[in-house]
Amino acid sequence: MQQYTEPISRLIKAFAGLPGIGEKTASRLALYVLNAKGGYADELSAAIGDLKEKVMLCRECISFADGETCGICNDPARDASMVCVVSDYKDLIALEAAGSYRGRYHVLHGQLAPLKGVGPDEIKVVELVERVRAGGIEEIVIATAFDADGETTALYLKKVFAGSDVRLTRIAAGIPMGGHIEFMDGSTLGRALQGRQEA
Amino acid sequence: MQQYTEPISRLIKAFAGLPGIGEKTASRLALYVLNAKGGYADELSAAIGDLKEKVMLCRECISFADGETCGICNDPARDASMVCVVSDYKDLIALEAAGSYRGRYHVLHGQLAPLKGVGPDEIKVVELVERVRAGGIEEIVIATAFDADGETTALYLKKVFAGSDVRLTRIAAGIPMGGHIEFMDGSTLGRALQGRQEA
Repeated sequence: MQQYTEPISRLIKAFAGLPGIGEKTASRLALYVLNAKGGYADELSAAIGDLKEKVMLCRECISFADGETCGICNDPARDASMVCVVSDYKDLIALEAAGSYRGRYHVLHGQLAPLKGVGPDEIKVVELVERVRAGGIEEIVIATAFDADGETTALYLKKVFAGSDVRLTRIAAGIPMGGHIEFMDGSTLGRALQGRQEA
Repeated sequence: MQQYTEPISRLIKAFAGLPGIGEKTASRLALYVLNAKGGYADELSAAIGDLKEKVMLCRECISFADGETCGICNDPARDASMVCVVSDYKDLIALEAAGSYRGRYHVLHGQLAPLKGVGPDEIKVVELVERVRAGGIEEIVIATAFDADGETTALYLKKVFAGSDVRLTRIAAGIPMGGHIEFMDGSTLGRALQGRQEA
């Protein structure tokens, strides 16, 4: 049986390494790249090749950046006294897309997961402690997920900064916009009640 | 609003150019490549970069090859007197996967499509005529699709080789394996009846 010729099957194998891309889709993508016009293959190859070289971690907030510091840390209009802690770069992008936050960030690049062996040394906590020690930060907004690992991480941060002058807050848990009370699960309703505010 | 940092958004844009990959999937893939370990990004980049450089068209059958001629044309065990004409490289791969064909191929890289302005000059017909003229080919098996363009292409080939010594055949139309008569469309049933053979 004749297989795809070597350079094609090599690319199929590489594409099939991507999450959610099976053998069949990988073949389709590889043949698309082969037949694509206008330097598309060169651009895709260069974009991937440059990625690891050009993407750095921001010295301040450990977010991905294309220089020593990221666009947010460089922006004098952003409130440097407020730091929102997220576990992942994707969370930062989502919060930025929401558009209402005007402070800075700190990306942990992970969440504590004792059962998976992810301890404090595996996430960027030391960097946050050092930032706080350097001064200028008045509030840390914890925006880790509301699942077991996210809550564990939030609790851990609370413990780390207990006794410091920094105000520690957690973004609110509750019913999402457009959510109907009758369809919400019990723990969400419990958190929403617990977090009730003056109307 | 802060967007993805430049090298990441460049790769997202490049990935989003692939068929069936939207902006959201492209972001996921780009971040996967960024975080992937073990030289994955380098391998993917190199595989794409090498593709256009290393893939050639086989001098004999115009299939994709990694040398002057492809593995099938190089294989002395394959019957050189029989040539199966396919419109696309993917069709060749499918026929090879089926495993029962022991002749050679000719890839047209397209089908005639008068309504889309694809004429005989846009597909690799001249190359097939020259191959036949060079001698040694006894049978041409037309394996273009059974849609309008595929049928047009088959008819055209029949006309081109009318009067030559070469035997011209067409793969059978009919009911696919596992197919139930009651669920087949009328034209398939018609072709199946027309193509009936001694039981």
